[in-house]
Amino acid sequence: MKVGIIGLGLMGGSFAIDIKTKFPDSEIFGIDSSNKNLDKALELGLIDYSIDFKDLKNMDLILVSVPVDKMFDLIDKVLNLIGYNTLVFDVGSTKEPICNYLKNHNKRSNYLAAHPMAGTEFSGPKAAIKGLYVGKTNIICEFEKTDKKLGKLALEIFDALNMKTIYMDPKSHDIHVAYVSHLSHVSSFMLGKTVIEKEKNENNIFDLAGSGFESTVRLAKSNPKTWTPIFLQNKINLAASIDEYISNLNLLKQLIIDGNDKELIKVLNNTNRITEILNKQ
Amino acid sequence: MKVGIIGLGLMGGSFAIDIKTKFPDSEIFGIDSSNKNLDKALELGLIDYSIDFKDLKNMDLILVSVPVDKMFDLIDKVLNLIGYNTLVFDVGSTKEPICNYLKNHNKRSNYLAAHPMAGTEFSGPKAAIKGLYVGKTNIICEFEKTDKKLGKLALEIFDALNMKTIYMDPKSHDIHVAYVSHLSHVSSFMLGKTVIEKEKNENNIFDLAGSGFESTVRLAKSNPKTWTPIFLQNKINLAASIDEYISNLNLLKQLIIDGNDKELIKVLNNTNRITEILNKQ
Repeated sequence: MKVGIIGLGLMGGSFAIDIKTKFPDSEIFGIDSSNKNLDKALELGLIDYSIDFKDLKNMDLILVSVPVDKMFDLIDKVLNLIGYNTLVFDVGSTKEPICNYLKNHNKRSNYLAAHPMAGTEFSGPKAAIKGLYVGKTNIICEFEKTDKKLGKLALEIFDALNMKTIYMDPKSHDIHVAYVSHLSHVSSFMLGKTVIEKEKNENNIFDLAGSGFESTVRLAKSNPKTWTPIFLQNKINLAASIDEYISNLNLLKQLIIDGNDKELIKVLNNTNRITEILNKQ
Repeated sequence: MKVGIIGLGLMGGSFAIDIKTKFPDSEIFGIDSSNKNLDKALELGLIDYSIDFKDLKNMDLILVSVPVDKMFDLIDKVLNLIGYNTLVFDVGSTKEPICNYLKNHNKRSNYLAAHPMAGTEFSGPKAAIKGLYVGKTNIICEFEKTDKKLGKLALEIFDALNMKTIYMDPKSHDIHVAYVSHLSHVSSFMLGKTVIEKEKNENNIFDLAGSGFESTVRLAKSNPKTWTPIFLQNKINLAASIDEYISNLNLLKQLIIDGNDKELIKVLNNTNRITEILNKQ
């Protein structure tokens, strides 16, 4: 199997590793707008060859793993370059904009809209790790718009990586991820910002940071070039989720100020349900 | 060394394990208001004996590890029961209220106000783990008010656990932990609440939750009986930190709504500093 990967960062690089592990005979071909990343990907053995866009026509499978604002032109260009037997898919964190953008493309059926719920706070080829995709939930949107044979190939690959496939329309996808992914990043980034600002007046405040703070602020290490366009593309849903979050923060603050221990403990107890919810997954 | 532990949950139970590891000859004596916890602590071998309050006078060291609203009466009672050679310390997450409460106690010098920055989201004797305290930052307040000989004993024990001791006045302590610990818990609890509420309208939203969400919401599994009194005792500082957090969330929301990618990426880049700050620790 010939696999092309455009964008050799955390997502693309880790996909290369997992594909090589499950399909040792596959050949991995890479493209990146950064020569530094390309060289690093070759050096790390993530890809077997560096190629040009014109070579993409020979691929069985092409993953586009670039920031979501770069997806539109890039996937359009790639679809125009390939034949009818090549599958192109992406792993972007927003799905409605790209599905809308490509809906009338004459090679729409060569494209599969995917979003594996996988990642870490690190970025670039060096961040690529083995097993990033293994066992993770993978959301596929508008599966019916993808050619049957190519869709089957995609599922075979995702199954080989033990991914849990979920089907969802792009609109629902973008609402759901606003809450379970994008809002987490916003909350973490702003927690980091708030404490960094406090540090100006309270020296050495971070000496006190324990594992609880580290865990909650982990996502604030994420790549701004990845997350800025995601936030902007999911603007409406994300703004609504931030509003609901702020409203809950105000509620809790008021209970604290009022010394309303009974209601406070009730709210926290209800939220403890998160333990069983996450264990059930 | 005879060590008494009052409150055999995560903090008390883990202290028992770490003390036994570093001081194999020590004997651990336990007290808990819950017979179930007491039995479990004996069964797990966290403590060697269950004792009564009257037996505390024979201890070299007593740890009081109960929710912070139970500390006042309990430490007062314990100080009244012991002789002048017993050290009593706590590991509570607020320090100004307890230091104020005990400031005129005639055995104030037998008490040491401590706060190890250690913990997990779990609670009860079963949550006790080996090494919880090892290598962690430990904040000591008003060290000068503790008897010199007893203070020396405390430092020997904390050093044996490789803890990094920091000295701080109770007021500064409570301000700092509002930001690096209590606010993290608030942000995590309210993130959990926001997504649980959304789940009512969007079924199976948690199917999409990845490791990023899990990390950010981890502290929402914490024990409400522990955290409600902490939030209430640190009301003023915590409310101020929540206000600053909300103000940053509103700022980010506005940048997203305005589509201000330049400023957005600048804000996120500045916050990425958290990576080097946490690595430096």
